[in-house]
Amino acid sequence: MTASRGYAAQTAKAPMAPHAFERRAPGPKDIHIEIAYCGVCHSDLHQVRDEWGGAIFPMVPGHEIVGTVTAVGSDVKKFKVGDRAGVGCLVESCRTCDNCVEHQEQYCTGGATFTYNGRDKDGAPTYGGYANDIVVDEAFALTIPAGLDLAAVAPLLCAGITTYSPLRHWNVKAGQKVGVVGLGGLGHMALKFAKAFGAHVVQFTTSANKVEDAKRLGADDVVMSNDDAAMKAHAGTFDFILDTVSAPHDVMQFIGLLRRDGTMTLVGVPEKPPVVHPFVLIGARRSLAGSLIGGLAETQEMLDFCGTHGITSDIELIAMKDIDASFERMLKGDVKYRFVIDLATLDA
Amino acid sequence: MTASRGYAAQTAKAPMAPHAFERRAPGPKDIHIEIAYCGVCHSDLHQVRDEWGGAIFPMVPGHEIVGTVTAVGSDVKKFKVGDRAGVGCLVESCRTCDNCVEHQEQYCTGGATFTYNGRDKDGAPTYGGYANDIVVDEAFALTIPAGLDLAAVAPLLCAGITTYSPLRHWNVKAGQKVGVVGLGGLGHMALKFAKAFGAHVVQFTTSANKVEDAKRLGADDVVMSNDDAAMKAHAGTFDFILDTVSAPHDVMQFIGLLRRDGTMTLVGVPEKPPVVHPFVLIGARRSLAGSLIGGLAETQEMLDFCGTHGITSDIELIAMKDIDASFERMLKGDVKYRFVIDLATLDA
Repeated sequence: MTASRGYAAQTAKAPMAPHAFERRAPGPKDIHIEIAYCGVCHSDLHQVRDEWGGAIFPMVPGHEIVGTVTAVGSDVKKFKVGDRAGVGCLVESCRTCDNCVEHQEQYCTGGATFTYNGRDKDGAPTYGGYANDIVVDEAFALTIPAGLDLAAVAPLLCAGITTYSPLRHWNVKAGQKVGVVGLGGLGHMALKFAKAFGAHVVQFTTSANKVEDAKRLGADDVVMSNDDAAMKAHAGTFDFILDTVSAPHDVMQFIGLLRRDGTMTLVGVPEKPPVVHPFVLIGARRSLAGSLIGGLAETQEMLDFCGTHGITSDIELIAMKDIDASFERMLKGDVKYRFVIDLATLDA
Repeated sequence: MTASRGYAAQTAKAPMAPHAFERRAPGPKDIHIEIAYCGVCHSDLHQVRDEWGGAIFPMVPGHEIVGTVTAVGSDVKKFKVGDRAGVGCLVESCRTCDNCVEHQEQYCTGGATFTYNGRDKDGAPTYGGYANDIVVDEAFALTIPAGLDLAAVAPLLCAGITTYSPLRHWNVKAGQKVGVVGLGGLGHMALKFAKAFGAHVVQFTTSANKVEDAKRLGADDVVMSNDDAAMKAHAGTFDFILDTVSAPHDVMQFIGLLRRDGTMTLVGVPEKPPVVHPFVLIGARRSLAGSLIGGLAETQEMLDFCGTHGITSDIELIAMKDIDASFERMLKGDVKYRFVIDLATLDA
């Protein structure tokens, strides 16, 4: 076995605290990664507090993992010791269902194995990246393009692919008008990608103090979604809208902004499910869709795209011991735009 | 002006009764049609009872109109006296917006003119096909393929195109598994078209007495949607589902039957808007969409397709005076599968 050290929640109400645990011994196809940085995703908080149910404790969260390869199994082809490597939300899938064969492991019919709060093939719980190391099959590890700041790459593994994938799937491109709802960890990446794909991008926010920042990040226009007149001026004009908000909000007001055949895709999960008025869909053949992270091949494509275009996340580096305080700040939206844990501080 | 005779509702609570009214004098691009048959659509009932609001009384409903051309204007090119012709839900649109230019007049940005309960360009109310005749611009009239029974063609003008258009738009074809929710006027046409396009078609119904009929109409399988086990057996397997039901029903139970990237499209408008759980969309990149009738070019394509494949509606011919009784039977779902008024009975 591999003796690992991390931060875990022992119960849904416990604070995060140092925790020693074991990972599997690396097999022939595994790589061992010494974790340098791990991003802090809102779903980490949902899960350590068991807000989605079915939590496995103790829980070591974290699925925006980057670091350096320190050992490789005998059959490993993609990595060598010393390489930079990343791990996102998935560490295994059945590899045989239609979805896996079509490189959409995130939709694995039997259920993919998530990086933490999941179960490995042998039933053992999985532990995430709030830790010193991880052991992972190379098929579920990503290579990191040279030239990108490693800490700022970490959030690409979840926030990045979660927004890149739907923008690609719905073919966002030059000549289109695209909306991004919410300017947080996901939203600021959606904004960067949609701009990089050539679209005219409108950022929706309810925070007046984010307007200037949205423009700095590339927004062609910023609309306060609580300003009815401003919203009305955009009715029926969007080709695509990506809704990144998990907080309660009115989904319908955005659907009506789509032009004929436009799609609005949800990547956040508000606690209260939206009521959808059929007339708004029918009146312009609009669609409401959802999208879940992305497959491994597309995650690598996204990282390579970021390498070519110099795209990373805007981050705030934190020490491991400050994780609970950072969760609280995240709940208030007080982060520009992703907390990333510096694992060098793990034992501090 | 053109002196016309029909059946109208004088108020939302009045019974349907004989009504004399005037239509415009035919212009150079107009044709005058002597109406032979008019289908009875559920939306006729919604509108004469003002259930959608904004009703214009007196109201002569009917937008599934077929008959014979009895006069043509000097600029008319598509029709000659004696031709069979049809009129559907639309009689005019702006013809200049993006949607009109792209042959999607039903989504006309400024609002298309509906065949009844609408306003013509000059502001005059439009009157539908529960009448002896209609005057319409030839651009909004359809030619009827030879060899099809005229009465059974009438419902194609609304029920037909409303189901044909989304099945085409979402590219239903051989090798796909397609669901049709509801076996009524719309549903039975959806079933016929989906089969004609080569799909494996599953009919969903809550009426045990419709199972055999669905099979006769071409369903490869029939599922009772109130049978949880039967529904569960189909989870995650459908490429496309067309939901034709306007009565209250659980939309979510069908969305979960879609495979990855599947779409469920609503063409009916239940009074109570559905609550849509984001996880069900996100978990397999599913879409919930809506679709409204179809454009003129596609309506002609649909009629020509019906001519080639011998497709018409299953109808029950009624006398004009029996319209209120027929509305009541329609409310109970007691019609196989569309009432069509024989306008020869108008003065009976």
